[in-house]
Amino acid sequence: MIAEILSVGTELLMGQIANTDAQYLSRRLSELGVMLYRHTVVGDNPGRVKEALGEALSRSEIVITTGGLGPTGDDLTKEMVAEYFGLEMEFDQRSYDALVGYMNQIGRAVTANNRKQAYFPRGAYIMENLCGTAPGCIVEAGGKAVAVLPGPPHEMQDMFERQLAPYLQRRSGAHIESLFLREFGIGESSLETMLLDLFDSSNPTLALYCGAGEVQARVSALADTPENAWKLIEPLEEEIRRRLGNHVYAASRDATMASTVLGMLRERRETVSFAESCTGGQLSATLIDNPGASDVIGEAYVTYSNAAKVRLLGVGEDTLRQFGAVSERCAMEMAEGARRASGATWGVSVTGIAGPGGGTPEKPVGTVFIGVSREGKCFAREFHFRGKRPWVRTLSCSNALNLLRLEMLEG
Amino acid sequence: MIAEILSVGTELLMGQIANTDAQYLSRRLSELGVMLYRHTVVGDNPGRVKEALGEALSRSEIVITTGGLGPTGDDLTKEMVAEYFGLEMEFDQRSYDALVGYMNQIGRAVTANNRKQAYFPRGAYIMENLCGTAPGCIVEAGGKAVAVLPGPPHEMQDMFERQLAPYLQRRSGAHIESLFLREFGIGESSLETMLLDLFDSSNPTLALYCGAGEVQARVSALADTPENAWKLIEPLEEEIRRRLGNHVYAASRDATMASTVLGMLRERRETVSFAESCTGGQLSATLIDNPGASDVIGEAYVTYSNAAKVRLLGVGEDTLRQFGAVSERCAMEMAEGARRASGATWGVSVTGIAGPGGGTPEKPVGTVFIGVSREGKCFAREFHFRGKRPWVRTLSCSNALNLLRLEMLEG
Repeated sequence: MIAEILSVGTELLMGQIANTDAQYLSRRLSELGVMLYRHTVVGDNPGRVKEALGEALSRSEIVITTGGLGPTGDDLTKEMVAEYFGLEMEFDQRSYDALVGYMNQIGRAVTANNRKQAYFPRGAYIMENLCGTAPGCIVEAGGKAVAVLPGPPHEMQDMFERQLAPYLQRRSGAHIESLFLREFGIGESSLETMLLDLFDSSNPTLALYCGAGEVQARVSALADTPENAWKLIEPLEEEIRRRLGNHVYAASRDATMASTVLGMLRERRETVSFAESCTGGQLSATLIDNPGASDVIGEAYVTYSNAAKVRLLGVGEDTLRQFGAVSERCAMEMAEGARRASGATWGVSVTGIAGPGGGTPEKPVGTVFIGVSREGKCFAREFHFRGKRPWVRTLSCSNALNLLRLEMLEG
Repeated sequence: MIAEILSVGTELLMGQIANTDAQYLSRRLSELGVMLYRHTVVGDNPGRVKEALGEALSRSEIVITTGGLGPTGDDLTKEMVAEYFGLEMEFDQRSYDALVGYMNQIGRAVTANNRKQAYFPRGAYIMENLCGTAPGCIVEAGGKAVAVLPGPPHEMQDMFERQLAPYLQRRSGAHIESLFLREFGIGESSLETMLLDLFDSSNPTLALYCGAGEVQARVSALADTPENAWKLIEPLEEEIRRRLGNHVYAASRDATMASTVLGMLRERRETVSFAESCTGGQLSATLIDNPGASDVIGEAYVTYSNAAKVRLLGVGEDTLRQFGAVSERCAMEMAEGARRASGATWGVSVTGIAGPGGGTPEKPVGTVFIGVSREGKCFAREFHFRGKRPWVRTLSCSNALNLLRLEMLEG
């Protein structure tokens, strides 16, 4: 089954919000085995909504719309669907009663224009809205269908999961399953070269996606049951893992480098502390962003000034004089100092020049040293990142976590 | 001038990422006075890219594409633009040299397929990529233009701001100037009520944009020269400032609460240190994200565990026993401790329950105490934020900075 998404809303064309509804629906459609070839966004303009709807229906079997179901005059998605199919709009008392009940519950007054929200194209299957005032609907005609969803993400998602997803599943029949392998430390083009022959496979298929300093490989298979789809995925997964080794850090769509490192530390019952200079707390924050972080981190040090590096971490004044704060030696002493001061199993440090100022010919902006310390072992590695300050800092954090991950894998 | 955005990438149709590129461009195009009627997303499929490109060009004067500029075989945006206009692809040595230089600098091997990234439709104006490997280009033909941008947001934004925005400004002719007043601490609907009568103005226009816990008011004016546009903006700015007072914290599109606080501290030649529990370093990172932070912050403490609060900040064990770590008293002692330990002018602390676990009936998830300390004054305020863990943490950071800002305004 081929679908398209048509999002209606001038706020999208003004850039006030990102089209996260389309993202959510796209992910769910791919999980349900529905093919999706296009998203379209148009504003709250009747002519353009109708035009885009017609185009989308000419290319697909089902069009899913989001937005344009509000009470105001410029909300007109349902009306345009009705016009496109030549259907009249009919009042639905049950929807109106539910709307009044909802408004009473949240203590809002029902206004005259709310009545508009209870009108639907004649014969539509009405999808009730349990999280807001605007019900959706499904209109079928000539073997095609239009599913009309509200714009606010929590309303849209709730309606999709309860009402539209089961409808789509019934209508399509096939199962697509996807595996996401997350890789760190190999660029997209090198990765493609390493996996080149595997791209020829048509079921399962392999595709690469570039993220923040990392690449994801997606393996998708189509089958009659989820189990059979996974049976197709497994051999390709094994082959990719064999070629990429430790560069694969997770096999999950939602995993991040930080959640992976957190999970490893928890499993080993080990702890970590950080000493951050140029990243200024971002490394600690990236780890603590994950629930359960309290099991693996008790404290961390933002030592932006040299004085703080000396006082809080015990970095030698000689080290700073002789090598500078952005040096292998300083990174090592920072990592060691964080580990000792906190009593954690691991100490990880970042010191570098995030820019825009502070670069020299020997140590240009983007020069970053990352140190790792554990009982009996301490080292630092030099990196050269390119980009603006936030990007240098983000890459510093992901590389610091990756270095810790690789050390843990060593034993 | 009418434009359309065409985003190319199967990862968008799979829902792996939201189309934030389209959001960014939409916002910027509206600021530049360019009309935008449609976004389209298609996958990495040559036929569909070409088809969508032709449709978009039939409706608009300029089409801006994002994505599909990578080194791999399914990256084909430039190729489809060339095919659409009947142009050959030509190798550009300068782009290739820059790409090789970039790869060397970040320590990645140049592969054969990288060469593809230095090919462009004949006669194209090449836009160099200062943040990655894929240059963009502008192709003009028959009074229409296609601007080809890379997909990764930081590369796209940098290229847009440096190269495409000036091109669009030259091409459109009229001058639109916009002022952004950033407000903190008033919700969007209350703000709308306070400014209601001002929305009637048609030149300048007033619009509100909702951001992370704050609202921006955009005042835009159209005139023959930038100077005349600013003359139209000024009276409206004054009126808004009169009504909103201290809630307006900056008058710049790029200002943030953190950059504002940093600027104020620098001007006063004062320093700050942070003691963070639930925000885990994010507050420090938010400040240090700004160039020049070293003038105002030397060190900060991530004290996630109770033991760290006691040892690093001198929080009383009695305090923790009697009131708990998430309490007014603990926040005050943390702020005081950070100020004393660091020797900074100001100490600011955050302690709270970011979730998803840890909530109780008395202190539900989202309960956060923020403490502020200076010589002779120390206080903490209680907040109740609603939302998921990252959102609670982000609101905690912005409110902590705002509290510091308001204290500085007091003298």
